[in-house]
Amino acid sequence: MSSNLSFVLVKPNEVRFEERPRPKLQHPHDVLVAVNYTGICGSDVHYWQHGAIGHFVVKDPMVLGHESAGTVVEVGSQVTALKPGDRIALEPGYPCRRCSSCLSGRYNLCPDMVFAATPPYDGTLTGYWTAPFDFCYKLPDNVSLQEGALIEPLAVAVHIVKQARVQPGQSVVVMGAGPVGLLCAAVARSFGATKVVSVDILQSKLDFARGYAATHTYLSQRVSAEQNAKNLIAAADLGAGADVVIDASGAEPSIQTSLHVVKMGGTYVQGGMGKADINFPIMALCLKEVTARGSFRYGSGDYKLAIDLVAAGKVDVKPLINGVVPFTEAESAFKKVKEGEVIKILIAGPNEKVDKTLNTDVDAAKLKAAQAAGQTGCC
Amino acid sequence: MSSNLSFVLVKPNEVRFEERPRPKLQHPHDVLVAVNYTGICGSDVHYWQHGAIGHFVVKDPMVLGHESAGTVVEVGSQVTALKPGDRIALEPGYPCRRCSSCLSGRYNLCPDMVFAATPPYDGTLTGYWTAPFDFCYKLPDNVSLQEGALIEPLAVAVHIVKQARVQPGQSVVVMGAGPVGLLCAAVARSFGATKVVSVDILQSKLDFARGYAATHTYLSQRVSAEQNAKNLIAAADLGAGADVVIDASGAEPSIQTSLHVVKMGGTYVQGGMGKADINFPIMALCLKEVTARGSFRYGSGDYKLAIDLVAAGKVDVKPLINGVVPFTEAESAFKKVKEGEVIKILIAGPNEKVDKTLNTDVDAAKLKAAQAAGQTGCC
Amino acid sequence: MSSNLSFVLVKPNEVRFEERPRPKLQHPHDVLVAVNYTGICGSDVHYWQHGAIGHFVVKDPMVLGHESAGTVVEVGSQVTALKPGDRIALEPGYPCRRCSSCLSGRYNLCPDMVFAATPPYDGTLTGYWTAPFDFCYKLPDNVSLQEGALIEPLAVAVHIVKQARVQPGQSVVVMGAGPVGLLCAAVARSFGATKVVSVDILQSKLDFARGYAATHTYLSQRVSAEQNAKNLIAAADLGAGADVVIDASGAEPSIQTSLHVVKMGGTYVQGGMGKADINFPIMALCLKEVTARGSFRYGSGDYKLAIDLVAAGKVDVKPLINGVVPFTEAESAFKKVKEGEVIKILIAGPNEKVDKTLNTDVDAAKLKAAQAAGQTGCC
Amino acid sequence: MSSNLSFVLVKPNEVRFEERPRPKLQHPHDVLVAVNYTGICGSDVHYWQHGAIGHFVVKDPMVLGHESAGTVVEVGSQVTALKPGDRIALEPGYPCRRCSSCLSGRYNLCPDMVFAATPPYDGTLTGYWTAPFDFCYKLPDNVSLQEGALIEPLAVAVHIVKQARVQPGQSVVVMGAGPVGLLCAAVARSFGATKVVSVDILQSKLDFARGYAATHTYLSQRVSAEQNAKNLIAAADLGAGADVVIDASGAEPSIQTSLHVVKMGGTYVQGGMGKADINFPIMALCLKEVTARGSFRYGSGDYKLAIDLVAAGKVDVKPLINGVVPFTEAESAFKKVKEGEVIKILIAGPNEKVDKTLNTDVDAAKLKAAQAAGQTGCC
Repeated sequence: MSSNLSFVLVKPNEVRFEERPRPKLQHPHDVLVAVNYTGICGSDVHYWQHGAIGHFVVKDPMVLGHESAGTVVEVGSQVTALKPGDRIALEPGYPCRRCSSCLSGRYNLCPDMVFAATPPYDGTLTGYWTAPFDFCYKLPDNVSLQEGALIEPLAVAVHIVKQARVQPGQSVVVMGAGPVGLLCAAVARSFGATKVVSVDILQSKLDFARGYAATHTYLSQRVSAEQNAKNLIAAADLGAGADVVIDASGAEPSIQTSLHVVKMGGTYVQGGMGKADINFPIMALCLKEVTARGSFRYGSGDYKLAIDLVAAGKVDVKPLINGVVPFTEAESAFKKVKEGEVIKILIAGPNEKVDKTLNTDVDAAKLKAAQAAGQTGCC
Repeated sequence: MSSNLSFVLVKPNEVRFEERPRPKLQHPHDVLVAVNYTGICGSDVHYWQHGAIGHFVVKDPMVLGHESAGTVVEVGSQVTALKPGDRIALEPGYPCRRCSSCLSGRYNLCPDMVFAATPPYDGTLTGYWTAPFDFCYKLPDNVSLQEGALIEPLAVAVHIVKQARVQPGQSVVVMGAGPVGLLCAAVARSFGATKVVSVDILQSKLDFARGYAATHTYLSQRVSAEQNAKNLIAAADLGAGADVVIDASGAEPSIQTSLHVVKMGGTYVQGGMGKADINFPIMALCLKEVTARGSFRYGSGDYKLAIDLVAAGKVDVKPLINGVVPFTEAESAFKKVKEGEVIKILIAGPNEKVDKTLNTDVDAAKLKAAQAAGQTGCC
Repeated sequence: MSSNLSFVLVKPNEVRFEERPRPKLQHPHDVLVAVNYTGICGSDVHYWQHGAIGHFVVKDPMVLGHESAGTVVEVGSQVTALKPGDRIALEPGYPCRRCSSCLSGRYNLCPDMVFAATPPYDGTLTGYWTAPFDFCYKLPDNVSLQEGALIEPLAVAVHIVKQARVQPGQSVVVMGAGPVGLLCAAVARSFGATKVVSVDILQSKLDFARGYAATHTYLSQRVSAEQNAKNLIAAADLGAGADVVIDASGAEPSIQTSLHVVKMGGTYVQGGMGKADINFPIMALCLKEVTARGSFRYGSGDYKLAIDLVAAGKVDVKPLINGVVPFTEAESAFKKVKEGEVIKILIAGPNEKVDKTLNTDVDAAKLKAAQAAGQTGCC
Repeated sequence: MSSNLSFVLVKPNEVRFEERPRPKLQHPHDVLVAVNYTGICGSDVHYWQHGAIGHFVVKDPMVLGHESAGTVVEVGSQVTALKPGDRIALEPGYPCRRCSSCLSGRYNLCPDMVFAATPPYDGTLTGYWTAPFDFCYKLPDNVSLQEGALIEPLAVAVHIVKQARVQPGQSVVVMGAGPVGLLCAAVARSFGATKVVSVDILQSKLDFARGYAATHTYLSQRVSAEQNAKNLIAAADLGAGADVVIDASGAEPSIQTSLHVVKMGGTYVQGGMGKADINFPIMALCLKEVTARGSFRYGSGDYKLAIDLVAAGKVDVKPLINGVVPFTEAESAFKKVKEGEVIKILIAGPNEKVDKTLNTDVDAAKLKAAQAAGQTGCC
């Protein structure tokens, strides 16, 4: 009932459950949240498997998880916007609010960010969590807590699509049909894109994408990037190229193809992570005057918009949720994600009662398609 | 007096002079211009040496040159903005005015552009030239025709700096100290950049840059791109990195360094041409949310601003002009550029009288420095 | 069959039909178009009633009309994008393509614009019309010629909403529920606005707006602008104010209210025409750092997007069309618009067969509501 | 030596000095600052005379002043960027850092702003002041503390010019040649404007402006706004109008003229405060597609840029400083400002030794011109 059981990564491939002390409010603007549901991100799986991502190395035991929704339990003395009982989506990174990035409205670039489940900071696969009230977003009545756990990856997609400055009437190509790629396609549609092409190397994932948000799909071929781009442009009838290309795969061939698919003066956004250095068609960027932007996490207004899109019915995150498991089965959920058997699986909080056989809103055919896809990965 | 002698590239490394028929006005909005001075661009030299740049192949004899200033000789029936005798800078590319690029204000991306000395179109190393009146820019009284011939490369630099959205107070690093790199540094200063760092592999070129427009210089080192970036940042005291990095070199190591020098959320513009594909630090672009843009030629407002900057004394192009040669010595001028003996050398029009020993505004020490630089090349 | 009958304004309140000579192609990029349907704009009615709008005075007989769709009959020698038989929406203003406004992508601001039915230029209530091919937009198969005649006012609305930079998730208040106000509401929805509030002084028009595109409506009250704004904000639950306010009414009280409804840092666009000078809450603009923009006609990309929105089913223009009359009944159609009996009525071209009793897609209840609205006017 | 003497407004026209308790650091990110110099703003004078500005009413005794520079005396436990002895410019308004305005980088619009000398908050005409470290900007060695006191009004001007998006090569008209108008002219020059026209109703102020930063001046005439605009355009050779017009006067005729002076598609910014509602040429805004923006105080990056401009020698604030008086003569300084005898007069901090006859950097002729100007006021 008031457990603060936590799912802790001890070292690569070794996790354990720990009953940790329940956190206390330490700042008058903070709130205490009981975590209800948490999704699993590719980065969680990567830390679990490898103990590090780039410069970020897990040196001490670290609680995993950062895609969570919860319920407010207690509020600090200065908090008026929230009250106990409010259901919220939890933005899991807290910037310093004082550096030039923060003061200029780009807090996701804060060098002193404290981000859940990024070493050395613990994550949200735990019973209780404290956060500044302004990073807790009240869910409207028509958005469930399970949908709330999907707001985090949806905010990632919102940020990517905003970086791409997608305008109504535009054509958008999305490389990769994992969770973030699918959500990018849905968000691009909600921004008014009239043509959204999902691209992947697995037909089963494209089948899901087509039923979900894409207006067109394209199965990547083992040809040169330039040839792949030509074929894609022809297949999706993109004329002189796509207005916008989003890479949500991180894969070198996808990125190369992106630069050849985008039209003169178009925009390409790198949203997926992969190799640090790749072979890149720099003269295509130069001669076509492409605008390229990176996208990192999410920032001002992204969580709010993500929730608005779900509340307004413009983006439906439920089809991506393949099921919910009890907290004690967290490791098996990680395995399912690693093995590509699911798009999104939620782990209930340690105080949440779950019928472990429950498959919330799962469409069996869709699930099967996703399972057939093999490695789903995360963008 | 009314020769239309033209400097024609017949095939790689073979040029000849031809007395061609003087062109006639064919459109009521056109003007006829007597060409006074023409600078030599790296692309001219490249066609002369190799007969092709990328997809553009010289199949038939082609007149070279596109950096020109001239004097209006005759105007079409619909032209009121210009009159015979007006001294002008000549924008040498004419877009279709009807495609979506043209109608949206980005005519430099017009797929049907007719550009001087880009096959199959003849260039401006000739006696007379016809152009739409709105691509001929009247020179103010305090801007000479020789300076007018530098407006073309200056417009290239203006376009690059505009693509970089340089703001007052920013720090700007310019990779490459050839003509375009030098002009980018000068334009960045005129846009209010308070710190402008010129980077090159030759100290003599940096010495010139320091005396010309750069506030700081950095000699590239044979170390990793990341280390080079660290050293550069330290040497120029750039703190968390440069607000803007412009590559005016096209060189792979410079581009790699650019991505490591630019700060979180900063801007990098690719202005120099080089290899089509290079090894590129894509995750630096992604994780730092860098905005990268290509820059291609020049567009709306660029020529006008280039002239304004010279007229207002904000950019001085005269130090870049090492001398003027008569039209009949065009080939020797090409050789001097190829051999890196000059920054800019002007070729007088065939009807222009020139004292071939004249070295206009040349500062001997500067010239020597430039000569010492070996290959100047063109960005 | 090949009549070039034209509907000519002779002087205020006096019109006549003239069989004029059929125009001939005069430029290789022009096309000849048979006009199928033409809507009536408030400006047409104003010229008909008053013979002038501001500085524009009808001195010689002038053909009225500029909201037209037609069918290509003949194409110039340089036209490849269109062929006889193509059904098109007709953009009725032709800029010079050479001034700084045109070259910078804002051709609607061209001082030498030739605009249909703006003196001294004839309009499109005629049999045949010539236009540059790039101002004729092919209609997709699923967009009818009658819908095509609505593309002009829809492009006006698209331009207004683009000037407002409407972003997904925003709240948008539209002052005025005439044709352009209704279309602004619909376009704002298609741009992702989650809350769109239509405001008018007539409940019947608000009833139509609510059924058409608005998520909320507000009946303007005879109170101070500040009080009206407070009531509107409360009624539509706009919190600290609307993200965007569009005035499509031109009415002084509406404009005043707009500035008090818009939130801190929000955007207000003036799209409707009215008095030249009004009492205006300038300190509200200053202290709230409002961005205010005017919107004039339409420009680059607006017609294309208008057609895309109709073709994609994102904006439905059919409910606005109350009926179609034969060409010979043009004057009675003008009367109906003047008397506010219709939202939009189309006049068939002189060669078009029309069953004059036909009421295309008219929903009787909606029509009645609109009729009850009295003066509809034009924004 | 360690007095915390404060200059307190008791009620309209009644001030007194109070020795208040020295403030203590209350937050680990705060610093304690000894105030060295403080300028007088028009708003200070207005509170002194009227006890209120708009909704802001002085109910309890309030310390005046907010344009200050000081020296760090003590730093909080979390402060590493500053140390005792550092000379700083003091940004006098502290936002909540948690609302959507703050998080999106527009903290000047924060509804919970705590701003010095805006009731109910005390100002900086006192001995010691505490502030968050990130709102204290270290002055470079070549910027004096007296110049530091001018950074506040310069930041106001920087914000206005940024709101105007002034670009290199543009023409800028500045209405009003008071302190902020003069600084706007200087900042516009530093942003690359090639033509800057100062406009006022007093020739003596224009004479000062011409010697300070304006390239042109125009004496407003008692004619219609349209005629005044025509004359101004002709006098300053602005062609089709000014690219940018800044109103730093708040005067109704100036604002009206602004809308007629700005060119098609140009930008107008309201920077000066005056009457809440005025007669305004709304159709000029609409038909010319003017972008109008308000400007309120200053925000992210403005203080930093203001200091950079002074340090780089791009804006010289010294000519605006007519003298320095001891703290005990604060009221006489207020009188001089009210009577228009000075542009800027500085009040030394209570612990600062001042030779009261000192006229720092005052050019007697300039001062005389300014004195002759009568009411200087504040924009």
